[in-house]
Amino acid sequence: MSIELWLWLTVAAGLIALVYGAVTVRSILSADAGSERMKEIAQAIQEGANAYLKRQYTTIAIVGVVIFVIVFFLLGLWAAIGFAVGAILSGMAGFIGMLVSVRANVRTTAASQQSLAKGLSMAFRSGAVTGMLVVGLALLGVSVYFMILTMGLGYAPGDRAVIDALVALGFGASLISVFARLGGGIFTKGADVGGDMVGKVEAGIPEDDPRNAATIADNVGDNVGDCAGMAADLFETYAVTVVATMVLASIFFAGGSQVDGMVLPLAIGAVCIVTSIIGTFFVRLGKKANIMGALYKGFIATALLSIPAVAGVIWTLVPEGLQREGGTDIPAMSLFLCGIAGLLVTGFIVWITEYYTGVEHRPVRSVARASESGHGTNVIQGLAVSLESTALPAIVIIAGIIVTFNLAGLFGIAIATTTMLALAGMVIALDAFGPVTDNAGGIAEMAELDGSVRETTDALDAVGNTTKAVTKGYAIGSAGLGALVLFAAYTEDIRFFSDRAEAGSFFDGIVVDFALSNPYVVVGLLFGGLLPFLFAGMSMMAVGRAAQAVVEEVRRQFREIPGIMERTARPDYGRAVDILTTAAIREMIVPSLLPVLSPIVLFFVILAIAGKAAALAAVGAMLLGVIVTGLFVAISMTSGGGAWDNAKKYIEDGHHGGKGSEAHKAAVTGDTVGDPYKDTAGPAVNPMIKITNIVALLLLAVLAGH
Amino acid sequence: MSIELWLWLTVAAGLIALVYGAVTVRSILSADAGSERMKEIAQAIQEGANAYLKRQYTTIAIVGVVIFVIVFFLLGLWAAIGFAVGAILSGMAGFIGMLVSVRANVRTTAASQQSLAKGLSMAFRSGAVTGMLVVGLALLGVSVYFMILTMGLGYAPGDRAVIDALVALGFGASLISVFARLGGGIFTKGADVGGDMVGKVEAGIPEDDPRNAATIADNVGDNVGDCAGMAADLFETYAVTVVATMVLASIFFAGGSQVDGMVLPLAIGAVCIVTSIIGTFFVRLGKKANIMGALYKGFIATALLSIPAVAGVIWTLVPEGLQREGGTDIPAMSLFLCGIAGLLVTGFIVWITEYYTGVEHRPVRSVARASESGHGTNVIQGLAVSLESTALPAIVIIAGIIVTFNLAGLFGIAIATTTMLALAGMVIALDAFGPVTDNAGGIAEMAELDGSVRETTDALDAVGNTTKAVTKGYAIGSAGLGALVLFAAYTEDIRFFSDRAEAGSFFDGIVVDFALSNPYVVVGLLFGGLLPFLFAGMSMMAVGRAAQAVVEEVRRQFREIPGIMERTARPDYGRAVDILTTAAIREMIVPSLLPVLSPIVLFFVILAIAGKAAALAAVGAMLLGVIVTGLFVAISMTSGGGAWDNAKKYIEDGHHGGKGSEAHKAAVTGDTVGDPYKDTAGPAVNPMIKITNIVALLLLAVLAGH
Repeated sequence: MSIELWLWLTVAAGLIALVYGAVTVRSILSADAGSERMKEIAQAIQEGANAYLKRQYTTIAIVGVVIFVIVFFLLGLWAAIGFAVGAILSGMAGFIGMLVSVRANVRTTAASQQSLAKGLSMAFRSGAVTGMLVVGLALLGVSVYFMILTMGLGYAPGDRAVIDALVALGFGASLISVFARLGGGIFTKGADVGGDMVGKVEAGIPEDDPRNAATIADNVGDNVGDCAGMAADLFETYAVTVVATMVLASIFFAGGSQVDGMVLPLAIGAVCIVTSIIGTFFVRLGKKANIMGALYKGFIATALLSIPAVAGVIWTLVPEGLQREGGTDIPAMSLFLCGIAGLLVTGFIVWITEYYTGVEHRPVRSVARASESGHGTNVIQGLAVSLESTALPAIVIIAGIIVTFNLAGLFGIAIATTTMLALAGMVIALDAFGPVTDNAGGIAEMAELDGSVRETTDALDAVGNTTKAVTKGYAIGSAGLGALVLFAAYTEDIRFFSDRAEAGSFFDGIVVDFALSNPYVVVGLLFGGLLPFLFAGMSMMAVGRAAQAVVEEVRRQFREIPGIMERTARPDYGRAVDILTTAAIREMIVPSLLPVLSPIVLFFVILAIAGKAAALAAVGAMLLGVIVTGLFVAISMTSGGGAWDNAKKYIEDGHHGGKGSEAHKAAVTGDTVGDPYKDTAGPAVNPMIKITNIVALLLLAVLAGH
Repeated sequence: MSIELWLWLTVAAGLIALVYGAVTVRSILSADAGSERMKEIAQAIQEGANAYLKRQYTTIAIVGVVIFVIVFFLLGLWAAIGFAVGAILSGMAGFIGMLVSVRANVRTTAASQQSLAKGLSMAFRSGAVTGMLVVGLALLGVSVYFMILTMGLGYAPGDRAVIDALVALGFGASLISVFARLGGGIFTKGADVGGDMVGKVEAGIPEDDPRNAATIADNVGDNVGDCAGMAADLFETYAVTVVATMVLASIFFAGGSQVDGMVLPLAIGAVCIVTSIIGTFFVRLGKKANIMGALYKGFIATALLSIPAVAGVIWTLVPEGLQREGGTDIPAMSLFLCGIAGLLVTGFIVWITEYYTGVEHRPVRSVARASESGHGTNVIQGLAVSLESTALPAIVIIAGIIVTFNLAGLFGIAIATTTMLALAGMVIALDAFGPVTDNAGGIAEMAELDGSVRETTDALDAVGNTTKAVTKGYAIGSAGLGALVLFAAYTEDIRFFSDRAEAGSFFDGIVVDFALSNPYVVVGLLFGGLLPFLFAGMSMMAVGRAAQAVVEEVRRQFREIPGIMERTARPDYGRAVDILTTAAIREMIVPSLLPVLSPIVLFFVILAIAGKAAALAAVGAMLLGVIVTGLFVAISMTSGGGAWDNAKKYIEDGHHGGKGSEAHKAAVTGDTVGDPYKDTAGPAVNPMIKITNIVALLLLAVLAGH
């Protein structure tokens, strides 16, 4: 088949994903949305989420326009348009995730009134819509813009203009997603933590009790943080990985292999959209009513179907393998085995994350047991689990690097990462399922439905906690592999620019020493290493401040609106939403700019002190430093947070004294601590790592142009 | 002056430190030890601490003998003896630290009955004894063994036998100190956390209340953990840094410069012992009764006096600077400026740590304020502070690396680290001060002395929390600089062995690629990066299990011994000590062996997969990976823990509702969480990093011998 045909097939796959989404949305919307009271609550959540996201994206748009102009002047029109495409699609992915979930939540409550199976089906299908739309948009964005640049404007596929435009597209996606992850994360956890502190702990009323002014805000948060933020994040992960693989292919391969290698990640993404859609039909509750089992059936079906699909792509597109520039061949079989390695890495990470966050295993149970002796021991055990949970995923990633490098060099690692992400549609579906069920439970509580409905939604929600942790482990795991790909792109770019530098230009005669014995490499590693810690610290503080604002507002309402506790007056939900909106948007700016500015600052500081080669070495090492600590910070936060949340759920299921016991109170504290860990700071580390990498790549392009 | 004379002067300085210690001990022992009841309590603490340390060191001795035999067979007699010297002296340093503090505690209580100034003086002098003995022993150990090897046995200073023997000495020191840090840390925090959970939280009795069966164990823990463990740790830090600098000098310099460079760190250590002793006389409470100010006077006096002292050494010992093998000179002025940089790094780290852990500044107050809204927000804010607190120290270390490398290359970094550690005598004095005052408060409480005594000891203790955090920041900061030195020793060793390898031997024709683009370097960075996380997770779990055992024992005693709560019966303190002893010794083994075995396992796994060069690259990168994450993990834990502890103290001083308020309860939770952070896992990361490095160096020596 010709390359053009492959590209058109990729576009077709992207469109299929959009069609799947549209059809499923129709079927979701046609379902029963419950009683008037339920609709009313859902309406309030919808309005809050809409209002928040609009303000968030307006603020982001201002930053975006400024950066668009900067990119335009530094790198030209096509890069600036690429940036805009990435940014707008990332924003759309987030918006769509929210739009679907605020409508599916109440319908999941209604479906849960009928049966667990129906509730599961509703929640999962809404997640699947988000998943397919995110992946479809990402694939369409990259492939269509690539087609416009090459087939439309006539650039050679490996031309720097094309590469810069694609990298800028990744930058746009990453920038928006770190804002969305952080803003949404601060909103949702500010509401959750603040609401819990003042409601559960102070006033002694249950979670999601309608007397708590923060409840609607809490439910809004699930949609704008766990859903919209997550969708933007995964969009970014997908787009950046595909772009990085394409960049690497453009550098490594010559002749026909170059364009083949660039199209390969797009083609893998395309066929895996189809396998993911097929996989969604395998999600069905069996006789044992095992929710996790039902979701895994879909995941496993997708993974297994992807094996022949990826094989088909490789042996059709590159049956003779790929020809390295001035080097040896990479046979088709090696590429295929790298794909399998990517699937295995995904499988292992899912399995390990489930072990650390599932209620059936030692870690969660140890946190639950530690709750018996109090708040302190609960938190200590949770932190211990969170630290320990990083080891196995890191070893899986290390094994993945070793295996795929030996099979096909750095490009092998890139193909493994691409194949990992080809499952993103299904993984997002599993994740987006979580906030929908969380909301469904909140609506059941607020509408004062029968307790059995809440039990059903709680069962779904417990699984949601695990699947949310799984996605985050998966995203950061792919970032771990992807960082090597981005670093390779960085070093190869320097070589490329240096080889072609005109006398007197920036890269003229530059040879960078990336050896660990170069102190500037150590400086870069340490500086990169501090970023995830500082970033996570800033995000946690932001959540603390937002939660504090909520606590004060809810306390004020209890004080100033008489009759709330007696249910004769209704709290002012909208005001809590407004306060959080302001807080979240204010708080997201500084931490989000940290990864954008850090590479630039480090570069110019070292440039002034020790010259070009040292500055380039320090920035390169920083890219690895940020992943070396970021990987562990992110995994520990997301797994630890999941473990705390499910330890609380485990106790609520009647263990260690059940609801209302001292152990339960301690578990609520742990859950509160885990909230910003797993839903704000931890997941935002992933886009943060990517931004740092991409800004460094763009910096090189800018330096080469002057 | 001749080199021999310098070595004899070093020995003399070491002896002066021991004499200072002996004289001060006599004056401490001659002081009033208070009432019979106080003596009785102190006796119980003494016996518990003695019994624990004896069992701990017996267990460690078994491991030590096994490793002694292994070192003997692999590296010969002198290395084995070096290992034994390091191990025994490290053990002695710990034991002495404990012996002094268990006698000074009750005398500090007695002195605090008279005045704050007297209490401060007693506690500080006991800390000074530990400080001088640790530094004196370390300096004597290294210099005397170096003299025996060179002047006695006639080896050339740069002979591999000498280097291997010194590195083995460092290994002995590190191995013992990680066991002591962990075992002591698990004991002390098991008692502290367990006692607090069951006493303060469950039974509602105050801290250190004599009705709590864990109180004596808690006080024992301060001595065996914060005092003995800390002393062993700082002994190790001092010895390893001096040894690493000597190794680097033996590699870098030729002719007379070689031995000059090797003696230089010893000479700097020697003069700084004298400046530290003089500095101790500056610690005196001023009119404002500012305790921290009094301690700082001593620290600043030592630092200022060290400037001319270091200058004197450099311009007498190496007035012409040092001559690099086949390279340029390092002028005396550059060496001196590196020393100044080391002092500045120490000063900045002390200042930053005080900012993050002192009650006067934003971080601690923010944690205190967050306690008002509950347990969860206290922990969230504490974690945020702990993450944020890593950034500035890392930047200071980065600046130190850049400045000293530009002044004098890698040896400049080594001299800066040596000068940093030359202040260790004074820094240990500030640290050992903490557990003594903590004990003094406990004794006051148990002996039911007037509340004003407890107020005095509490004031001292609050400062102790900060000084303890300062030492840990200092130790890990020096490890951050020292890691570069050890890594340089590793790479230079490979070059050395490779240059001299016989045909067919292991290092024949080996060229290792340490560039970041080598995937095995990334593998090593990630594998090294996971060690501090896994190690910290294992240590926290160990504390959790030990605390659980204490909780159950105290509960059992409340249940089975009638009259405890009515003060008509006394709890069985000894049984709680016994239970913790068993738990701590069992729990310390596995985490301690992690850093010993990891480099060996990584080496052989990668050797099997990808050959010698890849294995050596991965192990080398692992050394940097372990410092890149270890630095942040350790600083975040020690600063965060200090902030939590002092936030509680701040509330107890009457802010945010004071003792007994809801905010206070939340602050107690934070303090409990911070306990294993700052006193078990965090500080143990420092010796853990060193062991990994030293095992790697010894591995090279073993490989070269075969």
